[in-house]
Amino acid sequence: MLTVFSDEHYMRQALLEAEAAFERDEVPVGAVVVCRNRIIARAHNQTELLTDVTAHAEMLALTAAANSLGSKYLDDCTLYVTLEPCVMCAGALAWAQLGKLVYGATDEKRGFVRHGRVLLHPKTQVAYGVLENECADLMKRFFQRKREG
Amino acid sequence: MLTVFSDEHYMRQALLEAEAAFERDEVPVGAVVVCRNRIIARAHNQTELLTDVTAHAEMLALTAAANSLGSKYLDDCTLYVTLEPCVMCAGALAWAQLGKLVYGATDEKRGFVRHGRVLLHPKTQVAYGVLENECADLMKRFFQRKREG
Repeated sequence: MLTVFSDEHYMRQALLEAEAAFERDEVPVGAVVVCRNRIIARAHNQTELLTDVTAHAEMLALTAAANSLGSKYLDDCTLYVTLEPCVMCAGALAWAQLGKLVYGATDEKRGFVRHGRVLLHPKTQVAYGVLENECADLMKRFFQRKREG
Repeated sequence: MLTVFSDEHYMRQALLEAEAAFERDEVPVGAVVVCRNRIIARAHNQTELLTDVTAHAEMLALTAAANSLGSKYLDDCTLYVTLEPCVMCAGALAWAQLGKLVYGATDEKRGFVRHGRVLLHPKTQVAYGVLENECADLMKRFFQRKREG
């Protein structure tokens, strides 16, 4: 019997990754890549640890997923990420020809959406707002903690 | 005595990287990062070798430069790249707060410029057209070879 999990189920896994980032004092964003109902990659933001602006959760998850599949293209995959991807990550998802993107909280300042859906591959489906409050709350708590030093 | 090299000098180095990519059957794009008149990172496209769409020359050069400096931010650096960066790479350059971007050939289809200068950091200076013909010719030769099998 094939158990089909919900978007909430996978976003919960991405949220666990985001919480791991939070604990390591990284901006708390997490991601998982799902292919045929199986998580093939999971990652969280590591920009501080790696001293590398390219080490966003989505980028690390994409690289790991491509490694897992032995293919650069992820047209059969869904990426779940707790925060709306930035321009860099949207560009990477476009190159990967991602099948579907599901994100939790929106990012009005740094998210790709204000530059238009055109940054993604035309075939990539998009959904958002899954566990939105929990994803957004984690970000809020992080920046609150930062401000309080 | 401090020898100040020209943009052409550094673009020639980026072109050497692009030629190395060409020899390895990778889309021939090369990049170097210069900080205070010294090359601190050099890279060429490795998307095929690494089976990874994120392994563009600019991304690899950014990561290497940040490693070399021990800083995520490259506001004191110039990136020379043989081809106009794509959206992903422009987004990465924005996060790195790159001081200056110099590119050779334009990329009307995949380049970031058609989405607007706003994808870069507001403080990043931009120049282009340095060794443009040589950079573009290498790309043309690559795709011609591909078509001819």
